Amino acid sequence: MKLSSLSDKMENNNLDTKKNFDFNNQNNKLFKQTNSNKNMVKFQTVKGMRDFLPEDMIKREYVISSIRRIFEKYGFDPLETPAVEYAELLEGKYGEEEKLIYKFKDKAERNLALRYDLTVPLSRIIASKPDLTKPFKRYQISRVWRYDNVQKGRYREIWQCDIDIIGCKSMLAEAELIAAFTEILEGLKFKKYYIYINNRKILDGIARYANVPEDKIKDVFISLDKYEKIGKQGVINELKGRGIEEKSIEKIIKITEIKGASTLILDRLEKTIGINEGIQELRQLMQNLKKLNIKPRYLVNLTLARGLDYYTGPIFEIYIEEPKIGSLGGGGRYDKLIGKLSNNQDIPATGFSLGLDRLIDVLNELNLLQDKKTLTDVFIANVSEKNLKYSMNIATILRRNNIKSQFDLNSRDLNKQLNFANSLGIPFVIIVGDDEIKKKEVKIKNMKKGKESKIKISGIIDFFRNIL
Amino acid sequence: MKLSSLSDKMENNNLDTKKNFDFNNQNNKLFKQTNSNKNMVKFQTVKGMRDFLPEDMIKREYVISSIRRIFEKYGFDPLETPAVEYAELLEGKYGEEEKLIYKFKDKAERNLALRYDLTVPLSRIIASKPDLTKPFKRYQISRVWRYDNVQKGRYREIWQCDIDIIGCKSMLAEAELIAAFTEILEGLKFKKYYIYINNRKILDGIARYANVPEDKIKDVFISLDKYEKIGKQGVINELKGRGIEEKSIEKIIKITEIKGASTLILDRLEKTIGINEGIQELRQLMQNLKKLNIKPRYLVNLTLARGLDYYTGPIFEIYIEEPKIGSLGGGGRYDKLIGKLSNNQDIPATGFSLGLDRLIDVLNELNLLQDKKTLTDVFIANVSEKNLKYSMNIATILRRNNIKSQFDLNSRDLNKQLNFANSLGIPFVIIVGDDEIKKKEVKIKNMKKGKESKIKISGIIDFFRNIL
Repeated sequence: MKLSSLSDKMENNNLDTKKNFDFNNQNNKLFKQTNSNKNMVKFQTVKGMRDFLPEDMIKREYVISSIRRIFEKYGFDPLETPAVEYAELLEGKYGEEEKLIYKFKDKAERNLALRYDLTVPLSRIIASKPDLTKPFKRYQISRVWRYDNVQKGRYREIWQCDIDIIGCKSMLAEAELIAAFTEILEGLKFKKYYIYINNRKILDGIARYANVPEDKIKDVFISLDKYEKIGKQGVINELKGRGIEEKSIEKIIKITEIKGASTLILDRLEKTIGINEGIQELRQLMQNLKKLNIKPRYLVNLTLARGLDYYTGPIFEIYIEEPKIGSLGGGGRYDKLIGKLSNNQDIPATGFSLGLDRLIDVLNELNLLQDKKTLTDVFIANVSEKNLKYSMNIATILRRNNIKSQFDLNSRDLNKQLNFANSLGIPFVIIVGDDEIKKKEVKIKNMKKGKESKIKISGIIDFFRNIL
Repeated sequence: MKLSSLSDKMENNNLDTKKNFDFNNQNNKLFKQTNSNKNMVKFQTVKGMRDFLPEDMIKREYVISSIRRIFEKYGFDPLETPAVEYAELLEGKYGEEEKLIYKFKDKAERNLALRYDLTVPLSRIIASKPDLTKPFKRYQISRVWRYDNVQKGRYREIWQCDIDIIGCKSMLAEAELIAAFTEILEGLKFKKYYIYINNRKILDGIARYANVPEDKIKDVFISLDKYEKIGKQGVINELKGRGIEEKSIEKIIKITEIKGASTLILDRLEKTIGINEGIQELRQLMQNLKKLNIKPRYLVNLTLARGLDYYTGPIFEIYIEEPKIGSLGGGGRYDKLIGKLSNNQDIPATGFSLGLDRLIDVLNELNLLQDKKTLTDVFIANVSEKNLKYSMNIATILRRNNIKSQFDLNSRDLNKQLNFANSLGIPFVIIVGDDEIKKKEVKIKNMKKGKESKIKISGIIDFFRNIL
């Protein structure tokens, strides 16, 4: 206990002043319940990090494999990078979020960090391998770490699902990213969601049109990006607080009030701020999305800014309207990031990242994922232990045919075996008794319907192939 | 450069005295080539950690999915734990390997570590959740970290594929583990491999029979375990060095020279050291493996000891005879580990762990994995850019039918598009020209055979379904 609360104190000094909610994950709860147990610290996960039991992991693996399948059919290939990077690589890339980098020193006093995202490590690879065939389309589904204040829905270890296209200047790249994510969200049965799109060049244009001085443009981005959270008045206050002039604020806010269909917004914006490369790009992007014949869930949103420093062109964000959880992820073009790591020449690059953990939270809230404690389809129970060899034979037959199965490992009586299968929700139980062995049969119990049927051993594979 | 060599120096002081090979991974090589580049440190991966490009990852994902499929059909369910644990949890569990724990302090000065294996975190979960339905069969395929000397085939970030069964005293649990791994090794087309089995209780029995004092028994384990590496004389020297008496050494060595079929070894051992629970357990285990009708690749090996402190019963190891790489992984029973974390009552547990990285190295050496730079099956090329919309339509049709496809993103001429497809080894290219569009056809080129065929657009899905 002492160690833990001391750590928290020090942490609050190190971190910024946001209110630090005390988020009790499962392990922390248990930790408090068993306060008297001397060994309790051994049960804890590290702050903000979680265990995933099979009932969680089965859902996560299902979602990951759906996402992976779509990434792959869009022509993205897998890539993996180390969990740990030199801190130096990550510094200066994440704007105001830089303070969240999970830094540490290894035993040799190297300045290291757990990776903050999957984009900067990818950029490191691209910079180091100039001969890589381009365009290079890669996906990566893996964990990243943030030394953040821990609260509901905010963890220190999270998973991201990223696709990036390197070496393509055209808005076809953005179209591919948005198309893939639209298909993912459709496949997961989301109904009320949008993919907001905007462009850093448009935001630049707006800031210039509103006569915001060069060194304050970033402040405009940061404030605008909070529009969904804090509303119009909130943004106005924020802009004031950051020293933007009233006249400028008025102009900016007026532009954010342009509403309508996406093409219309761009037309009206153009009339106000004049010809802008970012507007042209978004038009091109929307044409490309039409050509890909993807469900049009994309919307131009002029307040979308995205926090990270490295974006240079189109930016996007997945916005879930129901439940009102907000952003599930986003991305954008970062044509200068890779060059910054090598020879300072632009290498066109654009990427889209989805946060797996929030996604799973939303899917759970919407009841869109099946509850399962095990993947096992068949449990083979025996009436008495002497039938175990026969049960094991059946397990071997089923497994050779890729049917997921278990048999009794603990010499339990039949009732306890059935209870076990039941408590895990295994859908079928095969019951092996003397009579069945004599007749080369098996009794199969459908645990949901309660129905029993007898079939010949030779027909067992066909039976399950038809029903599973 | 300075930072790096200083770190190495400090590290060598911290680490033990094994010769510290200078292992150049791909990134380090590049690092040296571009010595003049001021930005070079940004290219480096952290010492002992690697990037995996698509050509590596495609192989890794193939192997992982084969392993996962088998784990699941044997009734194991997925589980995941954080990368980071309290250092305290990991300490005192790994015997002589404890010095390899990748420890660090976070910003709040917590004593943390990157996890060393997947067994101790699993044990933490089991200890914290006494109500979990048992037997509990879980698999986990994930990374672990070792602060080791970096050399060929030895990395600081590695992947492990683990299965464990918690809550089963019987040798059925060990049989399930060994059966699953036999099927994995068979499936990956290994020819010359064994699964060595032994028992800590047997080793205890041998040490007692040889009159080794209680506090030296661990030394016997450690020395014997090196038998495959350093040979008989090496073990004798090692035992001498550890202060074991000559008479004891003689007795121990004589026992290790018992050769023959596994059952015979156990019979002869029993005649020498007397009735031993470990011998009974191995007999039971072998009978169970027969009942599961698994290819008998298991062999009793009395010198197998396994380094970790927590084993209490049967232990096993995968031994690859060709190429002579030695151990690919192993495991054993650890009935006391979970209790040590909670109420000190035994909770039966046994597990088997495979090292993915060495596995991939061996499979590459044996040429058992297909080389592929991309998973994409079809590239859609257009004769001129005005056909792009048609190409994108085809991509959408193919993708809706789960056929992995890409089209030209960079307005390249046909030749460059074909070169691109060729350099990635994409097996099929669809060529879209005016003539084909008019006739609602596509020209399909088989890139390996060089053959071209024309088919109607409507037949495109059937064509690829039959051929892919």
